[in-house]
Amino acid sequence: MSSVRVLPLGGLGEIGKNMTVVEHDGRIIVVDVGLRFPTPEMVGIDLVLPDFSYLRERARDIEAIVVTHGHEDHLGALPWVLRELGDDLPPVYGGALTMAMARSKLDEHKLKHVELNEVAAVDTLELGPFSLELIHMTHSIPDASAVALGTDLGTILITGDYKFDQTPVDGPPADVSRLAELGREGVLLLCGDSTNVDRQGFSTSESVVGPHLEEVFARCDGRIVVTSFASNIHRVQQVVDAAAALDRKVALVGRSMRKNVGIGRQLGHIDVPSGLLVGPREINDFPDERVVIISTGSQGEPLSALRRMAYRDHRQVELREGDTVVFSATPIPGNERAVNETIDRLYHIGCDVVTPRDAPVHASGHGYAEEIKLMLNLVKPRYVMPFHGDFKRLRMHAQLAEAVGIVPEDTFQGENGLPLDIDERGARFGSHEQSGMIFVDGVEIGDMADVALRDRRMLSADGIFIVVVTIAEQDGHSVADPEVIFRGVPFLDEADELVEEIRSTVEDTIERAAKDEIREVDVVQDMLHDDMAKLVYDRLKRRPMVLPVVVEV
Amino acid sequence: MSSVRVLPLGGLGEIGKNMTVVEHDGRIIVVDVGLRFPTPEMVGIDLVLPDFSYLRERARDIEAIVVTHGHEDHLGALPWVLRELGDDLPPVYGGALTMAMARSKLDEHKLKHVELNEVAAVDTLELGPFSLELIHMTHSIPDASAVALGTDLGTILITGDYKFDQTPVDGPPADVSRLAELGREGVLLLCGDSTNVDRQGFSTSESVVGPHLEEVFARCDGRIVVTSFASNIHRVQQVVDAAAALDRKVALVGRSMRKNVGIGRQLGHIDVPSGLLVGPREINDFPDERVVIISTGSQGEPLSALRRMAYRDHRQVELREGDTVVFSATPIPGNERAVNETIDRLYHIGCDVVTPRDAPVHASGHGYAEEIKLMLNLVKPRYVMPFHGDFKRLRMHAQLAEAVGIVPEDTFQGENGLPLDIDERGARFGSHEQSGMIFVDGVEIGDMADVALRDRRMLSADGIFIVVVTIAEQDGHSVADPEVIFRGVPFLDEADELVEEIRSTVEDTIERAAKDEIREVDVVQDMLHDDMAKLVYDRLKRRPMVLPVVVEV
Repeated sequence: MSSVRVLPLGGLGEIGKNMTVVEHDGRIIVVDVGLRFPTPEMVGIDLVLPDFSYLRERARDIEAIVVTHGHEDHLGALPWVLRELGDDLPPVYGGALTMAMARSKLDEHKLKHVELNEVAAVDTLELGPFSLELIHMTHSIPDASAVALGTDLGTILITGDYKFDQTPVDGPPADVSRLAELGREGVLLLCGDSTNVDRQGFSTSESVVGPHLEEVFARCDGRIVVTSFASNIHRVQQVVDAAAALDRKVALVGRSMRKNVGIGRQLGHIDVPSGLLVGPREINDFPDERVVIISTGSQGEPLSALRRMAYRDHRQVELREGDTVVFSATPIPGNERAVNETIDRLYHIGCDVVTPRDAPVHASGHGYAEEIKLMLNLVKPRYVMPFHGDFKRLRMHAQLAEAVGIVPEDTFQGENGLPLDIDERGARFGSHEQSGMIFVDGVEIGDMADVALRDRRMLSADGIFIVVVTIAEQDGHSVADPEVIFRGVPFLDEADELVEEIRSTVEDTIERAAKDEIREVDVVQDMLHDDMAKLVYDRLKRRPMVLPVVVEV
Repeated sequence: MSSVRVLPLGGLGEIGKNMTVVEHDGRIIVVDVGLRFPTPEMVGIDLVLPDFSYLRERARDIEAIVVTHGHEDHLGALPWVLRELGDDLPPVYGGALTMAMARSKLDEHKLKHVELNEVAAVDTLELGPFSLELIHMTHSIPDASAVALGTDLGTILITGDYKFDQTPVDGPPADVSRLAELGREGVLLLCGDSTNVDRQGFSTSESVVGPHLEEVFARCDGRIVVTSFASNIHRVQQVVDAAAALDRKVALVGRSMRKNVGIGRQLGHIDVPSGLLVGPREINDFPDERVVIISTGSQGEPLSALRRMAYRDHRQVELREGDTVVFSATPIPGNERAVNETIDRLYHIGCDVVTPRDAPVHASGHGYAEEIKLMLNLVKPRYVMPFHGDFKRLRMHAQLAEAVGIVPEDTFQGENGLPLDIDERGARFGSHEQSGMIFVDGVEIGDMADVALRDRRMLSADGIFIVVVTIAEQDGHSVADPEVIFRGVPFLDEADELVEEIRSTVEDTIERAAKDEIREVDVVQDMLHDDMAKLVYDRLKRRPMVLPVVVEV
């Protein structure tokens, strides 16, 4: 009996690291390969990837990787995943901008021999037992698509991130006509974006932002800094248009801003009048009221251009009273504090700050509740599996499905690692497959031995004491003064005294061990650890890591 | 010539750690002694206090410490400050509940001999060259007051935290009559709360929350958990009332909840019908629809009762599908992620969650813009200095002052450590005094040697490599195998190999040093550090702390 398995490896019960395995007749298509950024508890971790062990074991069965759009939470894990899949790498499919961004990432990782295929939204490809079609959608980056995978049992539609923007800044609106046609033909399963399911109504069109930006700009006498996501090419276009209308030059500041605008211009997604762009070093050649700076840093990122400006640490741009900073973005959950800190430093400098709370200078790239209902009604799926959201949003999405008439038994509130298996008899959850997080730390990737994270937490909380004891191999007596070293231990005004106490405790322990003829280094180290830890806790009421090293000579 | 100095040591350009020094005729009154909680960058720090060096030097000149109300950001630093002021401790003044909470804190710190004076709102005390009057205000804790300090030059009015609640749950509304009288008599300087200056209109009365809680409760079939701040006694009262009205028993869960409700009952601020309260262990003796649990954890604090329930780790309360959790509080900026994580775990369990976004189950304790204007108009101050807010809010407060007719030259947008000096000729900022943060780490307090924080960050980011080398005193040659130890370094599948490489590098370095007759241990350690750091970076592309220890025998 033919069957289809849809296994989300990321993006359910969380916002980020979207990745889904679709399996049919023994072949696999992976839709999206996203990453997440670490939370503060993940000390020293750079990136978080979905655990894709399932794919490692099935590398030969992967027919293709399909990427819905170029955001990090859908594309960012691509190089890491490909690196781990061995030599016979699957081809990658996606829109032109998505593939250009993928190419740029793969180049950074020196992955040259990957087949990247640009798919136009009108094509239907045959990939093993699947047909693949990308359906044009609107989102906060050009070239976003829904993915329709045809199987013997019917079509699996994964929406990716989308909104139904009826007046996009560039290109056509989402292809509702094709979605409706698929709906009429019969869609087996809809896996839809849940990001903004908690917002009522319909999202604001991106093209509404431009006139509001121009209004804000028109009120400014000084320089204007606009910060937004570098990949939001249409937003950059609108800032450029507003600047041009008010006869201001535009400078791009921040590495990713310059890179993405470069790619966007090459692919024709952004149109900048000649002579409008100036280099960051030329900003001071123009009067304040003739300048707009477009900058990275809308999330308060520590090393971003805007954060540096706010802390008066940017080489080219020194902000001052009279300048206006426009946040054309909202903080991603978790970044609120960093964004607020940045804003408050700007106020301290004397800048004016405009955020989406003050004026409609931002529009979300994700559809609201009414759009999610419209998607459900267009596609009329047999089964529904809400995607891209924490558990709250998955539940709210399921409630919307019920509201438009899909019976609750046909809606599946899943989680990462829980496969939905569909065959002619129906759909049901299978048993859990391995899933979770893989950490990237520098260039290494792995499932981060818990012990290393625990050690780091301990080290970061209270620092470390190290004592080195040198004993004679013959009789176990100490033959050199113990060395006591500490790092990350604060407030040690009385350090000398404590170090002396530790030395004397350590000498006592060594003598006790020698007297009792305890000669196993492990045992002596344990004794030293316990005695030192007790002393240090008594004196500091903290538990730094205590590390005794015994050297036999 | 007589003069008054108002020196904020905390609470300006930030939200938290409020503390102000008012100086007149050589004598000092300190208003509020608050603390803040650390941000994630302050690795391993427990609490943040205002830098009160200014007071240490002037300990003998302190006439009194006055506390406006019992919240941590106004009272929490009291034991730490008193501990550092020497033997001759100044008396402390405040409302009855505030002093009861102060007593409980001082007891924990074994500070027994502090004079705590309950001040009723009608008294006027003479304290050296000052008169002191507390004016009853409404806030999210009972017994909140504004502080009026009379001087030869006029009255300094520090509002503390307040809202103009016309229908408080218990006790009278804020004493607008006395504020107006002070205004008619002439107030020299108003230092007012700016927390909610960015919200339009008038705040919601606390007593509006109760009926909404009852409405939400009435819709619940299962158990109800309500989480709020433990010090919000009136909120607890309203939860109790709603539970009683619906014939549900109430259990208090979380140490601070039980403690504060205890103090509140003793002082008559909360009234619980007899037989209504049940112990946490008795919860399961009652049917689900007969139980309300009031819990700590509204901020998603890691060890709080609610967080434990959400992660299925609470000894007494095991949540399940059908239970409803009501967040009767909003996240303090910076806590959004922790709160959202908690909420999503609750959804995952199958609970329903009600937050202030879903129903009006919370009211802020800080007045909105119209209340701040009302305060300005009642008090009619000669000078204005916005307090309690980040720089954005201080500026918005100054704009409101201008809106009600105070000329901008009479409004002073200050910062911590910048004193406002007032004499008969007028008011002006003086020169900066020492101010900033003091860190509390365990029981120690200090200005946290930067180096310890930097070390902790380094340790937490990448861990530590330690190598111990034993060399002969005579010739500098190695006399034992180097010991290589690492902690917090991840993914070392190839650890053995790397350790071998390090050993061999270290041996080379030692031989080179011996050959070059370099015998100073410091120099050898530096050489070892550089060679090891290079090797480790080459292999791991990370920079863990590298710590070579040379032992001479």
